[in-house]
Amino acid sequence: MKRIAVLTSGGDAPGMNAAARAVVRKGIYEGLEVYGIDYGFLGLVNGDIHKLDLGSVGDLLHRGGTFLYSARYPEFATEEGQLKGIEQLKKFGIEGLVVIGGDGSYHGAEALTKRGFPTVGIPGTIDNDISGTDFTIGFDTALNTVLDALDKIRDTATSHERTFIIEVMGRDAGDIALWSGLAGGAEAIIVPEHNFVMEDVVERLNKGLARGKKHSIIVVAEGVISGNEFANQLAEFGDYHARVTVLGHVQRGGSPTAFDRVLASRLGARAVDLLMENRGGLAVGIQNNKIVENDITEVLKQKHVIDKEMFDLATILSI
Amino acid sequence: MKRIAVLTSGGDAPGMNAAARAVVRKGIYEGLEVYGIDYGFLGLVNGDIHKLDLGSVGDLLHRGGTFLYSARYPEFATEEGQLKGIEQLKKFGIEGLVVIGGDGSYHGAEALTKRGFPTVGIPGTIDNDISGTDFTIGFDTALNTVLDALDKIRDTATSHERTFIIEVMGRDAGDIALWSGLAGGAEAIIVPEHNFVMEDVVERLNKGLARGKKHSIIVVAEGVISGNEFANQLAEFGDYHARVTVLGHVQRGGSPTAFDRVLASRLGARAVDLLMENRGGLAVGIQNNKIVENDITEVLKQKHVIDKEMFDLATILSI
Amino acid sequence: MKRIAVLTSGGDAPGMNAAARAVVRKGIYEGLEVYGIDYGFLGLVNGDIHKLDLGSVGDLLHRGGTFLYSARYPEFATEEGQLKGIEQLKKFGIEGLVVIGGDGSYHGAEALTKRGFPTVGIPGTIDNDISGTDFTIGFDTALNTVLDALDKIRDTATSHERTFIIEVMGRDAGDIALWSGLAGGAEAIIVPEHNFVMEDVVERLNKGLARGKKHSIIVVAEGVISGNEFANQLAEFGDYHARVTVLGHVQRGGSPTAFDRVLASRLGARAVDLLMENRGGLAVGIQNNKIVENDITEVLKQKHVIDKEMFDLATILSI
Amino acid sequence: MKRIAVLTSGGDAPGMNAAARAVVRKGIYEGLEVYGIDYGFLGLVNGDIHKLDLGSVGDLLHRGGTFLYSARYPEFATEEGQLKGIEQLKKFGIEGLVVIGGDGSYHGAEALTKRGFPTVGIPGTIDNDISGTDFTIGFDTALNTVLDALDKIRDTATSHERTFIIEVMGRDAGDIALWSGLAGGAEAIIVPEHNFVMEDVVERLNKGLARGKKHSIIVVAEGVISGNEFANQLAEFGDYHARVTVLGHVQRGGSPTAFDRVLASRLGARAVDLLMENRGGLAVGIQNNKIVENDITEVLKQKHVIDKEMFDLATILSI
Repeated sequence: MKRIAVLTSGGDAPGMNAAARAVVRKGIYEGLEVYGIDYGFLGLVNGDIHKLDLGSVGDLLHRGGTFLYSARYPEFATEEGQLKGIEQLKKFGIEGLVVIGGDGSYHGAEALTKRGFPTVGIPGTIDNDISGTDFTIGFDTALNTVLDALDKIRDTATSHERTFIIEVMGRDAGDIALWSGLAGGAEAIIVPEHNFVMEDVVERLNKGLARGKKHSIIVVAEGVISGNEFANQLAEFGDYHARVTVLGHVQRGGSPTAFDRVLASRLGARAVDLLMENRGGLAVGIQNNKIVENDITEVLKQKHVIDKEMFDLATILSI
Repeated sequence: MKRIAVLTSGGDAPGMNAAARAVVRKGIYEGLEVYGIDYGFLGLVNGDIHKLDLGSVGDLLHRGGTFLYSARYPEFATEEGQLKGIEQLKKFGIEGLVVIGGDGSYHGAEALTKRGFPTVGIPGTIDNDISGTDFTIGFDTALNTVLDALDKIRDTATSHERTFIIEVMGRDAGDIALWSGLAGGAEAIIVPEHNFVMEDVVERLNKGLARGKKHSIIVVAEGVISGNEFANQLAEFGDYHARVTVLGHVQRGGSPTAFDRVLASRLGARAVDLLMENRGGLAVGIQNNKIVENDITEVLKQKHVIDKEMFDLATILSI
Repeated sequence: MKRIAVLTSGGDAPGMNAAARAVVRKGIYEGLEVYGIDYGFLGLVNGDIHKLDLGSVGDLLHRGGTFLYSARYPEFATEEGQLKGIEQLKKFGIEGLVVIGGDGSYHGAEALTKRGFPTVGIPGTIDNDISGTDFTIGFDTALNTVLDALDKIRDTATSHERTFIIEVMGRDAGDIALWSGLAGGAEAIIVPEHNFVMEDVVERLNKGLARGKKHSIIVVAEGVISGNEFANQLAEFGDYHARVTVLGHVQRGGSPTAFDRVLASRLGARAVDLLMENRGGLAVGIQNNKIVENDITEVLKQKHVIDKEMFDLATILSI
Repeated sequence: MKRIAVLTSGGDAPGMNAAARAVVRKGIYEGLEVYGIDYGFLGLVNGDIHKLDLGSVGDLLHRGGTFLYSARYPEFATEEGQLKGIEQLKKFGIEGLVVIGGDGSYHGAEALTKRGFPTVGIPGTIDNDISGTDFTIGFDTALNTVLDALDKIRDTATSHERTFIIEVMGRDAGDIALWSGLAGGAEAIIVPEHNFVMEDVVERLNKGLARGKKHSIIVVAEGVISGNEFANQLAEFGDYHARVTVLGHVQRGGSPTAFDRVLASRLGARAVDLLMENRGGLAVGIQNNKIVENDITEVLKQKHVIDKEMFDLATILSI
C-alpha cells in the first residue's frame, strides 16, 4: 500500500483532528502518501480529495471540530454512491481508507470493504455508543463539558430555586448522562437504558430535602425525554419547580482532553498499521486498556451496554 | 460605628463571596466587629445573624455562590418587615449594614436607611442592569461562561447544522447578550433594548451564507423571546433549522474572574469606609474606572442603558 | 464490621475528596459508621479522629485538595507509631481503615494489616506511579493541567522565542511527561525511564526547523533534570535559547476531571466492600478497565512501567 | 484613504487577533481595502504584505497568539529601516497603518508618522504597562491565567509545604502581580514599583501562621527578583521552605477573555476611524471606560503607574 486517505463523518467530536493528524503523520512516517477527503462520504463521492503533508496537520491537535469537515450523507448507503466513491479513490491512486465517525460511518466503511476497498473505522463520537471499544473519541471531552456546567449550577444552590435539570446528549445511549451524573453527584440520572418512574424521582428528592440537602440536580438524556417536559412532569407529580439547562451542541465542541487526544493518536496510528497489512473491514478501539481491532461487521451487530454497577453506584453516592 | 453586618440578597452572582470577604476583613482591619446575616432579608427578619472573624472568610475568594446564602423575600417591602429587621439588628448591637445584590436588594437598603438605619448597597448581579456602576459584580464571569459555550458551539461549525441559537439571561437588560455576542462574533444579537425584525435576521444569515460563512450563531436574551420560540420563527421565515442551547443557571455559577474579584474587593472595602463615616443610603459602584458612591434613591430611579455603539459594532464586525 | 475510618496521606491529589466521599456514603449506605482521620498517619497517632455523616461530604466532589488534610509522617514506619495508631483506632471502636495515597501510604496500610488491623489502600497520587492500577486518582486532572499550559505556550509560537521547556512533576515516573507530551504534540519528552542524549534532542529540533516548524516544546520530568538546567545544556549544545516554565504545585490542584471523580467514586466504594468482607492488606485499582483489588505487598514489590509504545508514538507524531 | 494595513509587533498577547479582525472588518465595512503585514516591522521592511478579506479573519476571534505573526526588530529604529518600510507600503498603495503592540511598537508608529506616514497604535501587551489606556489588550487574559494557577496552588494547601511562590511576568510593571495577587488573596505581592523588605514579608507570614493560616502564597513580578532567588532569601531570613512556580510564557497564551475581545474589537474599529480621518500619530485606548485616542508621543513620555490604593487593599484583605 502506497497511498491512503482519511475522512471524518457524521456528528463531529473533539479529538477527530487528533485522530486525523495521527493517520497523516504515522502514514508519512511509514513512507505512505496520505490524502484528506473533505465533507465525509459526500466529499468522497464528489472527489473532494487533496494531499496532506506533515504541516497540514500542524497546530491541530488541540482543536475541536474537524479540519476535514463532516457531513451526513445517507445516500452513501446505495450501491451507486459506494461505487462512485471507490472510483474517486482509485482516480487518486488511493488504496486504503480510514473513516473516523460513529455508527453510520462504520456502515460506510463496512460497505467499501465488502466491495473490495480496504477501509478501517475509528470510533469518533461523543456518545460512547459504539461497540468494540470501551471509549469513543470525544466522550471524555463532552463529559467534562457537561460536568463543568453541572458544577456551575451547583454553585448557585443557595438561591431560592432548589431543583435543576440538565438535558444532555444521548439518543439511544446514556453514557454521557451516567458518567457526568456520577461525577457531578446528581440526585437522579435519566438514561434510555433504564426506565424511570417519576414517583421514584420525586420520592428521592423528598428524602434529600428531608435530610438537609439544599438543592437537587437531575441529568436527563435527550433520548428519553426533553428537559422541559421532564420539568413539567416533575412540577405535576412533585411540586418541584425546576430550572432547565439544555446544553445542546456545546457538548460537541471544545479543545479535546488529554485522554481523548491520546486515545485518538493511538487509534489513528493503529489504523495505519492495519492498512499497511492490507487489512480492512476492521474497527479499532480501546478495550481493557489496550488498543485493539475488531471485525467491523461484528461491532455493528453488538450493542454498547451501559455499566449497571456504575448506575447503581451513582444512586448510592448521591443519597 | 463599632459593629456592622453584611448580607447577600436576590439571585446569586459569582463574586458575592469576594465582596463579603472584603467587608469582613476591611471591617476587622478598621477595628469593627462584623456580623453575617444568612438568607438575605428573610434571615435578617428571622435573626439569622452570626459573628464573623478573619478565618470565616478564608478560602472563599474563588468560590461561586454565596456562603451567606441568599433568598428572595418580597415581604421585606412592608413596614412590618423592615421594623422587625431593624429590631433584630439592634438586638445584636449592629449599627450599619451592607447589602449585596440587585435592584430588589437596593430597595431594601433604601428603606432601612429611610427608617434611620444606615445601609449601603453593593451591586451584585450577573445582569449588569444596575445604574450607578458601569459593571456589576458577576457580570464578567457570566459573560465568560456564555462566551465559552459560544466558542464550543463554533467548533462544531463543520457538522451539517448551520445555525445555532443560544438563549442567555437578561430579562430587561441585554448586556450579557450584547457583550458575549460581540466577543464571540455572533451573527445576530437579540436584546430587550432593541426591537428585532425576523426578516432582517434572515436576510443577514442569507448574506453570510452567500459570502461563504459555514455557520451562524445567534444570541438571544431570554427577556425578548425564548430560544425555542426564536428557532420556530426562524424556521418559518427563513428555512433555517437551528439548534438551541439554553444555558440557564450555568450562567450564575463558576469561580469569579479576576475582574469580578477585584471589583468585589474594592467595592466591599469602600462600603465599609462609608459606614464608618456613618453614611447610609448609598450604592457603591465603579464609574469611569473609579470606585464611587451614589445616592441609592437616584440609582434606583435611573435605568441602565445598553451601549448603542457597541451594539452597532457587533453588527459591523460579524459581516 | 460496624465502624470504619478513612484518611488521606502523602502529597495531595485531585479526587481524594471524591474517594473519601465514596467511602463515607457507601459505608453509611451499607449500615456502617464512618470516621474521618485528619492529617493522615500523624493524625491517626494523635487521635485526630471524628465521625462523618452524609452531609460531611456534601459539596466536596468537585474540590481539589483533601478535606481530611494530609501530612507526610515517616515516623509511622516505626513499630511504636503503628501500635499507637491501632490503639487510637480501637479507642474509637474502629475495625477497618481506608488509606488514600501513594507508595508511602501503602506501606503504612500494609504494616497495619500485618499487625492485625484490616486496611485497604486506594491509589491517590498525580504521578501514576503505583502498580496494581492502570491509573491513579489525580493523574488525569494533573495531565489536563499540564496540557492546558502546553496549549497556551503553543499559542505564543509566533513571537521570536522558538523553544520552550516545561518542567513537570515526576521524580521516578514519567507518565505525566509522556501523556501530556503526546497529547500536546511536544517535540521531545524527557522521562526518568529512558536516558536522553542532548545531541539527539538538538538534532530533532534542527530537523523540525528545517521542515518549517516555527517552534518546539520540550516536556521534562523533574526527576531527570530541572527545566533550567536542561535549558542551559540546550543552549550549550544547540544554540537554542529556550524559555522555561516550571509548573510546580499547580499540577496538584484544580477541580478533578470526570475521569478522576468516577475512578475515585468506584474505588472508594470497592474499598468499603472489601472491609465489609473483613479483607485487609489489599490495594484497589482499575486494571483492564475493571475495578480490582491486589495484595498490597505484591503491589509494593512491582514497579509501574511506562508504556514504551506510547513513548515511541509520541516521537513519530511530532515529526 | 483607500487602503490601510495592519501589523502586530513585539511580544504577542491574547486578543491581538481580535484587534486585527476588527481593523479588517471595520475597514472593509467602510469601503477600504485592508492589507496584513506578517512578522511586524521586520515583515514591513521585507515587504511581507498581503491583502485580507472578510474571510481571512474568520474563526480568529477566540484564538491566542497572532495570525500575522510577530517579531522583535530593533533595526526599525534606524532611518534606513523606516524609509524602507514606507517604500514598501507605498509600493502596495497603502496610505495608513495600524500597529498593534507595546512600547517598542509605539516608537515605530511614532517614527512612521513623523516621516509623513499616518500610523495609529493599539495597545497589545499582557503587561498593562502602556500609558494612555487603563487596560491593554491581553492583560485581562493573562491575569486570569495567573489566577487559575494561584487557585490551583491554594487547593494543595493541606499538604505539608506551606509556602508557595509564583513568579509572574512584569519587567518594569507590577500590574499582573498586583491584580492577580489581590484577586487570588496572596499573602504578599512583590512589584517593581514598591521596594520590598524581606523581614516584613517574613513577619507577615509569621502573623498569618499565628492566626491559623495553613499556607501562604507570594506573587513575585519577574522584574524584581526571580522566584527561585526569592525562595532562597525567604529560607535564609525566615526558615520558610517555599515551592516555586514559574509560569513563563503560559501567561501569553490562551483564548482571550470576553473583556479582551471586546476591548480589542472596539480599539481596532476606532483605529480605522482615525485613519479614515487621516489622523496618525495617535494611540487608541480605553480611559474612564471610554474609547479614546491620545498623542502617541505624549503616551510614550508618560509612565504607567500602579494603583497604590489597590496595593494597600491587597495587604489589608489578606491579613
